[in-house]
Amino acid sequence: MKPVCLVIGAGAGIGGTVGAKFASEGYHAVLCRRSDKDGLDRLVEGIKTAGGEATGLLLNAIEDDAIENAVTHVEQNIGPIEVVIYNLGAQIGDRPLEDTSYKAFEMGWRLATFGLFRLAKTVCPLMAERGSGKIIVTSATAAVRGNKGQHSHAAAMGGRRMLCQTLNAQYAPQGIHVTHILVDGAVDAPDTLGKMLGPELFQKLRETRGAEDGLLIPAQMAETYYHVATQHRSAWTHELDLRAYSDVAWWNHA
Amino acid sequence: MKPVCLVIGAGAGIGGTVGAKFASEGYHAVLCRRSDKDGLDRLVEGIKTAGGEATGLLLNAIEDDAIENAVTHVEQNIGPIEVVIYNLGAQIGDRPLEDTSYKAFEMGWRLATFGLFRLAKTVCPLMAERGSGKIIVTSATAAVRGNKGQHSHAAAMGGRRMLCQTLNAQYAPQGIHVTHILVDGAVDAPDTLGKMLGPELFQKLRETRGAEDGLLIPAQMAETYYHVATQHRSAWTHELDLRAYSDVAWWNHA
Amino acid sequence: MKPVCLVIGAGAGIGGTVGAKFASEGYHAVLCRRSDKDGLDRLVEGIKTAGGEATGLLLNAIEDDAIENAVTHVEQNIGPIEVVIYNLGAQIGDRPLEDTSYKAFEMGWRLATFGLFRLAKTVCPLMAERGSGKIIVTSATAAVRGNKGQHSHAAAMGGRRMLCQTLNAQYAPQGIHVTHILVDGAVDAPDTLGKMLGPELFQKLRETRGAEDGLLIPAQMAETYYHVATQHRSAWTHELDLRAYSDVAWWNHA
Amino acid sequence: MKPVCLVIGAGAGIGGTVGAKFASEGYHAVLCRRSDKDGLDRLVEGIKTAGGEATGLLLNAIEDDAIENAVTHVEQNIGPIEVVIYNLGAQIGDRPLEDTSYKAFEMGWRLATFGLFRLAKTVCPLMAERGSGKIIVTSATAAVRGNKGQHSHAAAMGGRRMLCQTLNAQYAPQGIHVTHILVDGAVDAPDTLGKMLGPELFQKLRETRGAEDGLLIPAQMAETYYHVATQHRSAWTHELDLRAYSDVAWWNHA
Repeated sequence: MKPVCLVIGAGAGIGGTVGAKFASEGYHAVLCRRSDKDGLDRLVEGIKTAGGEATGLLLNAIEDDAIENAVTHVEQNIGPIEVVIYNLGAQIGDRPLEDTSYKAFEMGWRLATFGLFRLAKTVCPLMAERGSGKIIVTSATAAVRGNKGQHSHAAAMGGRRMLCQTLNAQYAPQGIHVTHILVDGAVDAPDTLGKMLGPELFQKLRETRGAEDGLLIPAQMAETYYHVATQHRSAWTHELDLRAYSDVAWWNHA
Repeated sequence: MKPVCLVIGAGAGIGGTVGAKFASEGYHAVLCRRSDKDGLDRLVEGIKTAGGEATGLLLNAIEDDAIENAVTHVEQNIGPIEVVIYNLGAQIGDRPLEDTSYKAFEMGWRLATFGLFRLAKTVCPLMAERGSGKIIVTSATAAVRGNKGQHSHAAAMGGRRMLCQTLNAQYAPQGIHVTHILVDGAVDAPDTLGKMLGPELFQKLRETRGAEDGLLIPAQMAETYYHVATQHRSAWTHELDLRAYSDVAWWNHA
Repeated sequence: MKPVCLVIGAGAGIGGTVGAKFASEGYHAVLCRRSDKDGLDRLVEGIKTAGGEATGLLLNAIEDDAIENAVTHVEQNIGPIEVVIYNLGAQIGDRPLEDTSYKAFEMGWRLATFGLFRLAKTVCPLMAERGSGKIIVTSATAAVRGNKGQHSHAAAMGGRRMLCQTLNAQYAPQGIHVTHILVDGAVDAPDTLGKMLGPELFQKLRETRGAEDGLLIPAQMAETYYHVATQHRSAWTHELDLRAYSDVAWWNHA
Repeated sequence: MKPVCLVIGAGAGIGGTVGAKFASEGYHAVLCRRSDKDGLDRLVEGIKTAGGEATGLLLNAIEDDAIENAVTHVEQNIGPIEVVIYNLGAQIGDRPLEDTSYKAFEMGWRLATFGLFRLAKTVCPLMAERGSGKIIVTSATAAVRGNKGQHSHAAAMGGRRMLCQTLNAQYAPQGIHVTHILVDGAVDAPDTLGKMLGPELFQKLRETRGAEDGLLIPAQMAETYYHVATQHRSAWTHELDLRAYSDVAWWNHA
């Protein structure tokens, strides 16, 4: 029985690509996403065609028990979860305070912060009992600085980052490794950035940023996700950043 | 009509003391707290006896409309809110993940993060229309590092800090000044620390930390709260820290 | 005998203005600068005319023993140094690596980092023996992020900030308060910014940034310098930032 | 001709081990250290015995032209430098200010900050002309917080970190990737930690911290050094941390 890599938030960008990478390295990839069963099936088929194992699950992560039940289901029916990729985004575009509703603010927290807490509550005891486990969290620049228009996103991601720290503080000595990956740039992901911008702007951005690698390419990011999962417990990374060479780090001026 | 200093979270520690300071400087202090009407009345009377103006409001900040109605009530019946002290804490003591319930995690967010968002949604448009206003936010070390046992508190405070940044980013150019005060140490406050520790441990801590000033003394902290409220708009502080001389900064080893 | 406020780097901007503020509050201001005796005399006369006490010293801070001798001289002939304003800048404008000489890089370190170390070595033992003292350090955004073209400045200021932390870590319990003031914006200072830009560009910037208060105004900054010097030892600030309301915080996009 | 991995500071710990890793992946490892020719020869022989290519150079990095000449020599006689591991430490143990001489403070800067600047001045133009290159910098917790007794070390490392940022800011768009690796814990390195502690304390620490992997193991760290060198330019890491699972992150209490 292969160990499981559970991906919460598996679109055609980071989530699905990282899942495929882990599948190619011998994991059973369990891909969870909210909608688009066809897209999910394509991801699963792609992995199987390449000789890997994969399962797709449609679930709405913010619904009661959705994450919890997925974890239980996978552990009972597929295999022990060795790696979780927590990849739920909460970016809703730039919105001034007056256009950010209570509901939107709460939704950001439910996706980015509370969902990770629920996952950790469910999976950490299992991992701790086995003495090992990895939780790799996709995060955003908004976790470390709050820009104008990012009220919901920044508050949610700031909470997410602190939660990654508290989880490591409690669980690293028990063999659970949490990595906070600060994605500091636009990702070449049609399911998220592509939808937010629309096809024309998205294509234009791809061209502007240097043809093939001015944006963060998910398949390349996946190498780093996989690397941190293979780090020996004597040398773990808790926090790292990723950006394209042609981009400017968040701490520099734009 | 005096300008109003609205204090959300006005116990006998930081909140009440800062309110009294502003009252002594010519503000009408509106003190809001959840319970202990007697304690609240004593704070209000203390301010009046000293020649200041004050009003007490009992309100449960996490209830729907509580903060919003308080703002509206004050603006209509007392005076324009020039300063808000957002002083709701969310510390629930050190609790491992297994003892941190979903409810406790959400409560932390409601108090520390969402409450500030609701306040900002309500008061920022009023302040922006007047072209000036100050929101001074009491924060905690947990806003910048997540210790073991601080899952709820750190996630909530991390979100709070990012929200302060997004608010400044949008509203500073319109004359609204948000200051994030990182309280990096134990406060000599009977209503919070005293209750958490119990009278004996609290007294012992006071003695250990150097008799009169090893803990953060609210009346002294109030001087800095007041100072940032008086900063000229050409030289605003967005973030500062406070700790006792005898304490160790959070970034140093304990 | 009045306590002394020693200003290392006292031009017509922050240094001289902060010195004048302390003089107006009862300190003997000792103003040190490298050149322009006429300008220095004007600052001293201005303070005296306003009823304060002041002395001017010309010294080249990076010369051997210059800072050390100044401290000794002041302690022996003027009075005990209660406050030091360490205000030597090291900004040399944006220079790519190829245009940043070894000498320029070392000069940055000598001014921004090593000079503060030499000052601390000399004055901290005196302050520690008296059980109190304040060192207020003007710092820059470059202390927390390294922009293109800031190789010398950022390396020097990054070192300066860490040194402020180590000094507090050792000396705060002995009553010495070090404050790192991150000046995050252009200062309305003819001696530094004015010289760097030239009169025309400088005037244009003043107009663009909002007439009277789009730039950091030294007299307003001085209020915060003075405030931290008056903080009670139960509530000290180690780090704070200053910027104009109309400016963008360094962590936000420009 | 193999590409070169130049290691500045190649003892039996991180430096030599990372060099051996790169040699095993097809690089010619050029190992530079100040002294102990026998130890250096053993490292070189070890690499050759394993089938790799290596050269040893004895040089005193703080001497004028030592780094510069090494770069030139390697480029002319061995091959193009594709990767530099800048691994010079500057830890001198905990020393209060009164025991930290001007010379020790300057030495820290020369090793940790100025040496990296000199290296960058020499090698970046070569790498920029080739459109690619990697500079991987071993750094320390002291780069982000200044503890008591770390006056020299923290000031030097704080400067080093900012310099890594300025170098990326200028050169990343030209294909040069600088990574700042924050080594946040004790390394199982007999040449540095072993010498500082002495054999008995060193052995005791190894036992206390969990026998085989409570300390950072250089061979495991080397995997991460190598990984960042292989990152595709669409997904580069500028900063990451490393610590043992059993250790506490610097931002948490000790």
